[in-house]
Amino acid sequence: MSHNSFGHLFRVTTFGESHGPAIGAVVDGCPPRLTFRRDDVQAALDRRRPGQSRFTTQRREPDEVEILSGVLEAEDGLLTTTGTPIGLLIRNVDQRSKDYSNIAQSYRPGHADVTYDMKYGVRDYRGGGRSSARETAMRVAAGAIARLVLPNVTIRAALVAMGEIEIDRSRWDWAEVDRNPFFCPDPVAAKEMEAYLDGIRKSGSSVGAVLEVEADGAPAGLGAPIYGKLDGDLAAALMSINAVKGVEIGAGFAAARLTGEDNADEMRAGNDGKPVFLSNKAGGVLGGISTGQAIVARFAVKPTSSILTPRRSIDASGADVDVSTKGRHDPCVGIRAAPVGEAMVACVLADHVLRHRGQTGG
Amino acid sequence: MSHNSFGHLFRVTTFGESHGPAIGAVVDGCPPRLTFRRDDVQAALDRRRPGQSRFTTQRREPDEVEILSGVLEAEDGLLTTTGTPIGLLIRNVDQRSKDYSNIAQSYRPGHADVTYDMKYGVRDYRGGGRSSARETAMRVAAGAIARLVLPNVTIRAALVAMGEIEIDRSRWDWAEVDRNPFFCPDPVAAKEMEAYLDGIRKSGSSVGAVLEVEADGAPAGLGAPIYGKLDGDLAAALMSINAVKGVEIGAGFAAARLTGEDNADEMRAGNDGKPVFLSNKAGGVLGGISTGQAIVARFAVKPTSSILTPRRSIDASGADVDVSTKGRHDPCVGIRAAPVGEAMVACVLADHVLRHRGQTGG
Amino acid sequence: MSHNSFGHLFRVTTFGESHGPAIGAVVDGCPPRLTFRRDDVQAALDRRRPGQSRFTTQRREPDEVEILSGVLEAEDGLLTTTGTPIGLLIRNVDQRSKDYSNIAQSYRPGHADVTYDMKYGVRDYRGGGRSSARETAMRVAAGAIARLVLPNVTIRAALVAMGEIEIDRSRWDWAEVDRNPFFCPDPVAAKEMEAYLDGIRKSGSSVGAVLEVEADGAPAGLGAPIYGKLDGDLAAALMSINAVKGVEIGAGFAAARLTGEDNADEMRAGNDGKPVFLSNKAGGVLGGISTGQAIVARFAVKPTSSILTPRRSIDASGADVDVSTKGRHDPCVGIRAAPVGEAMVACVLADHVLRHRGQTGG
Amino acid sequence: MSHNSFGHLFRVTTFGESHGPAIGAVVDGCPPRLTFRRDDVQAALDRRRPGQSRFTTQRREPDEVEILSGVLEAEDGLLTTTGTPIGLLIRNVDQRSKDYSNIAQSYRPGHADVTYDMKYGVRDYRGGGRSSARETAMRVAAGAIARLVLPNVTIRAALVAMGEIEIDRSRWDWAEVDRNPFFCPDPVAAKEMEAYLDGIRKSGSSVGAVLEVEADGAPAGLGAPIYGKLDGDLAAALMSINAVKGVEIGAGFAAARLTGEDNADEMRAGNDGKPVFLSNKAGGVLGGISTGQAIVARFAVKPTSSILTPRRSIDASGADVDVSTKGRHDPCVGIRAAPVGEAMVACVLADHVLRHRGQTGG
Repeated sequence: MSHNSFGHLFRVTTFGESHGPAIGAVVDGCPPRLTFRRDDVQAALDRRRPGQSRFTTQRREPDEVEILSGVLEAEDGLLTTTGTPIGLLIRNVDQRSKDYSNIAQSYRPGHADVTYDMKYGVRDYRGGGRSSARETAMRVAAGAIARLVLPNVTIRAALVAMGEIEIDRSRWDWAEVDRNPFFCPDPVAAKEMEAYLDGIRKSGSSVGAVLEVEADGAPAGLGAPIYGKLDGDLAAALMSINAVKGVEIGAGFAAARLTGEDNADEMRAGNDGKPVFLSNKAGGVLGGISTGQAIVARFAVKPTSSILTPRRSIDASGADVDVSTKGRHDPCVGIRAAPVGEAMVACVLADHVLRHRGQTGG
Repeated sequence: MSHNSFGHLFRVTTFGESHGPAIGAVVDGCPPRLTFRRDDVQAALDRRRPGQSRFTTQRREPDEVEILSGVLEAEDGLLTTTGTPIGLLIRNVDQRSKDYSNIAQSYRPGHADVTYDMKYGVRDYRGGGRSSARETAMRVAAGAIARLVLPNVTIRAALVAMGEIEIDRSRWDWAEVDRNPFFCPDPVAAKEMEAYLDGIRKSGSSVGAVLEVEADGAPAGLGAPIYGKLDGDLAAALMSINAVKGVEIGAGFAAARLTGEDNADEMRAGNDGKPVFLSNKAGGVLGGISTGQAIVARFAVKPTSSILTPRRSIDASGADVDVSTKGRHDPCVGIRAAPVGEAMVACVLADHVLRHRGQTGG
Repeated sequence: MSHNSFGHLFRVTTFGESHGPAIGAVVDGCPPRLTFRRDDVQAALDRRRPGQSRFTTQRREPDEVEILSGVLEAEDGLLTTTGTPIGLLIRNVDQRSKDYSNIAQSYRPGHADVTYDMKYGVRDYRGGGRSSARETAMRVAAGAIARLVLPNVTIRAALVAMGEIEIDRSRWDWAEVDRNPFFCPDPVAAKEMEAYLDGIRKSGSSVGAVLEVEADGAPAGLGAPIYGKLDGDLAAALMSINAVKGVEIGAGFAAARLTGEDNADEMRAGNDGKPVFLSNKAGGVLGGISTGQAIVARFAVKPTSSILTPRRSIDASGADVDVSTKGRHDPCVGIRAAPVGEAMVACVLADHVLRHRGQTGG
Repeated sequence: MSHNSFGHLFRVTTFGESHGPAIGAVVDGCPPRLTFRRDDVQAALDRRRPGQSRFTTQRREPDEVEILSGVLEAEDGLLTTTGTPIGLLIRNVDQRSKDYSNIAQSYRPGHADVTYDMKYGVRDYRGGGRSSARETAMRVAAGAIARLVLPNVTIRAALVAMGEIEIDRSRWDWAEVDRNPFFCPDPVAAKEMEAYLDGIRKSGSSVGAVLEVEADGAPAGLGAPIYGKLDGDLAAALMSINAVKGVEIGAGFAAARLTGEDNADEMRAGNDGKPVFLSNKAGGVLGGISTGQAIVARFAVKPTSSILTPRRSIDASGADVDVSTKGRHDPCVGIRAAPVGEAMVACVLADHVLRHRGQTGG
């Protein structure tokens, strides 16, 4: 049991705070003899990196990852996993020097400030400490390793709603995701979001978002009934991302409104005798086990609690105060959750591939 | 790691199939010197038991629980936990004798039939085997033990939507939950549901539902940042229930549409210097840690896949077939998920109470 | 984490007390499509069963095992594992009715009585409760399942010392193990032990023993460096058996007296290019990973603390008392540890076979 | 489950190879608000550091530890744990540049070279890679943190045998342990060891050792019956140290030769009504639970396999070769195992203190 580890056979442990010297991760259980380059991990990190548009925090972190163990390096830089734990480290660079004495004593409404103090009686108040979204960089790095275990699986995330703006699914274009700063697959909605988020940003406010992750090409048979359900682990993985308040698989909450006739995905035999599903309400998971269809999960990210408008709160002495958070922050922290969501799904699938192979040999 | 265990310090392991001789559970890690009676567990089971109205499967299972270990029994029947594992057993009684050869070879659309065969190459096809909702009886029994660890916490669940019918929250009355067969807190909606579900039932169809669980009185400080988040564990717990496709905490998916101003729960100092929250969008969890407010979670249950209308499918030989499921089944399996949801929340909270005490002494 | 589970991918959870209604186990993670018969498990239990000679406790337990889940039964009784948890149950039959009020209040020196009360503030004092060797029946049952995962591995245990009597290894004959009531591989030593243990038994005393377990045919590559060492898990498994106070692998403690020249097992290439080891000081494990040689472990069992001679002790009120244990007990509890040791080694190896396959596909 | 983690509530994960850029550890689950200084960890590391006498490898590693997370630092350098994971890092400095192509292809008898290749099909052959004793530095660093959880427990280790030389227990003096390079508590034996090990060292040979660890002041009640036995976890912890081949608790293997009368530790009531034990054959653990007496464990370390004398072996191509290991190495790797043994016992006890508090509140 660990409060800071995720997964079983493919197991990720992270450490580090927003304003400490470094953040890091240990990826344990990775199969041996997988090859990759440091740039593969760095490229994944670069997608998540803040400060790439005016819509994310202006903190400048190069997020240069160091790979400390678990690989053999060839002369040309090709890395081969050895099966031993892969240590990953990123130095924090842009911890802006400032006086935290005010934040240290008062609690931002909607923020973990207050619960950390309630639980531990102490916390690293600098930049949110452990509760900072900075930790998600290590998830992305670990996710890049997880993808090595899934060579035939394509895992992609997109932002499907920002505040009141929802995408039109008929315009979905995966190529569009890389063309706008929102990971939005709908070019029309992306334009609307740009104007909308500029308004939010300028007013010092923030807004939530819904993200969708799709894993295409995952084999059938991953997961297990009851407490090892693939969707149970996906739910835990996505809910563990900062600010996430809801997770659904396939039709999700909409399935509650359907009849059995409308919800069940019918099948016909494919040329190989295996089932061809005629729809995917299940989101690729039946009874906790993958069907071989695309695995589809969505998660809701709440608006960040760091806003300019003063809110009523208390301080550590128990006195009423008004709190207003100045300085750099993400107006929609959900944007950068796209690569993080992908990484978490990759970690869950890598774990289940190894678990499935362990039990069944398959 | 276990595919059939849940929790860490308060740890539940279940076994058993729908049509095998028995189902059972082991509750490990329960604190010593807690007292209860066998009837406390039985009463919880009786709330979940099928066959109590025309709206649940007509399978007649008395679900009489036997407590095999982990307790000392006084002459008056009072049981005291000893700290050793509590073994729980329920004999299956009403496994209706019938020929399963047809179901054994063809797959119900929307059912785990096909994925079990894909994963294991074999399955217990009788009554759904391990994927049957029958397993949830053991969760309810374990939940009754978990509640002993939470003497000051009230955990209640209610059905808040059935198919197209949603409750009106202004009519919410917890007492109403026990007065209708749907665990519905809104008497008006309950009446509508009765007529609606009669229609569904008579046509051999099925429908989904949304359930809400509330835990009132849980202490602040439960949970942990990152991968030990209380809401992450709640999500995993609720998603592990059969047929659940979505989970949300507090405002949940609706939070994605809010601004930071609207989403953050403001605070004022209470008489004891502790925060009094002025709203509960967070559902009682901030940064993965409980705030001391009511913990609120919702989950969506899909319609059961056992329906009368023939659906296109294939059989184990890879041939196209049409499948229609005759015989007893639940027209809305979500109804009986209310006690199950309560039990899972109780297990998660009991686990986190012990984990919190372990790390902090609190 | 569980106090009453063992293993990771092949995971055994047990419950039950000496004088409760039943003892049981859940074997989780077993691969699907393995076939066996109930008699295979029963035969393993029969080897451990007490009351088969005058040298074990006269408690009469048929130890009839019921297989409650996780298998499909064919008409001829052949069982096929389905990959779901296997529930195993044995009813206690011969809980001799007696007044335990004396034992309930005073502590047997050398027994867990006192530490249970120190830890839990309550215990099931009837027959030792959870600390009774009765629990080991479930290990043996689980071990019979574990052997299904290891079709080419022969796991055998023998008693190599009883009190002052050690076997002569030059007389080692595995066939002899089944010909005497001590699992002793040396017929001459077995004769000596018979006379020796009769004396111990008649005087109401008890004596310790050393057991050796050998697993022949286990593949190379099982285990992992550092905390997943195969010998680390073997040590934990064997030390978890009641009354065990020492564990060693291969040359064990004797290796401390050797030089590097004498300790290292030299190799020569076999016909298949794989190493042929010229000795086995390592006991089949190097750097935590199996070499493909026979895996050899030994463990020391202390004498049972239930003896007739009065010993100085205290009671629960803190008063000095003298304690003498009358009634049936094992004069050398180490005898029946042979099948238990085999079972634990089988469980560890089955777990590591699945773990190795999970990580490496091998 | 993790191959590179140890403990449950107090959980240590390590990574890193002998000749990679760094080794590191994550200590998860540490209670909040414990205070220490970086020097406390460094001092522990300095005791284990190689190159301090002619009897350990001449590799020069300053082993300067960096504390990357999980603490708040006051202006005077005092560190306070925050309850979040503590990241620890040590850069490797003295990876002597040399051509490893020879070692990469041939296997040292008695070394993990061959099993790593058998398991993973690849390994980091530089300096032993992950199997190097260098990893134990991180255990010592983690152990220093663990001791914070155990303010009233004194944990000390001593070398009680080196090759054929055993100490005389009547001369045991803990102060002596720091006065000789062997952690030997017997000044006379220490002198003998000096001459003996000089001979071993000069001949390029190596020799084994036996270490004893004692934890004084640990509370009663730590551990759990069956698979959570304190001695089971101690056995796993000590067996997980490189080159360890045997572990025993209290009288250990000698208990097998005793009668029940001689083995059981009698009790008398102390002034506080609690038991005073009249002996400690049990090594402070009865039925898997601590008694409050000193916890005593011993472990056997085999001689290192890196020796000058050529030994018969094979290479990766399957050809017969003779292998001789030149260069720096430890003639008795058991010497430096003393601080490592202490650290592992500290980690186990810290874990069990938290586990006990979690379940019982005690």
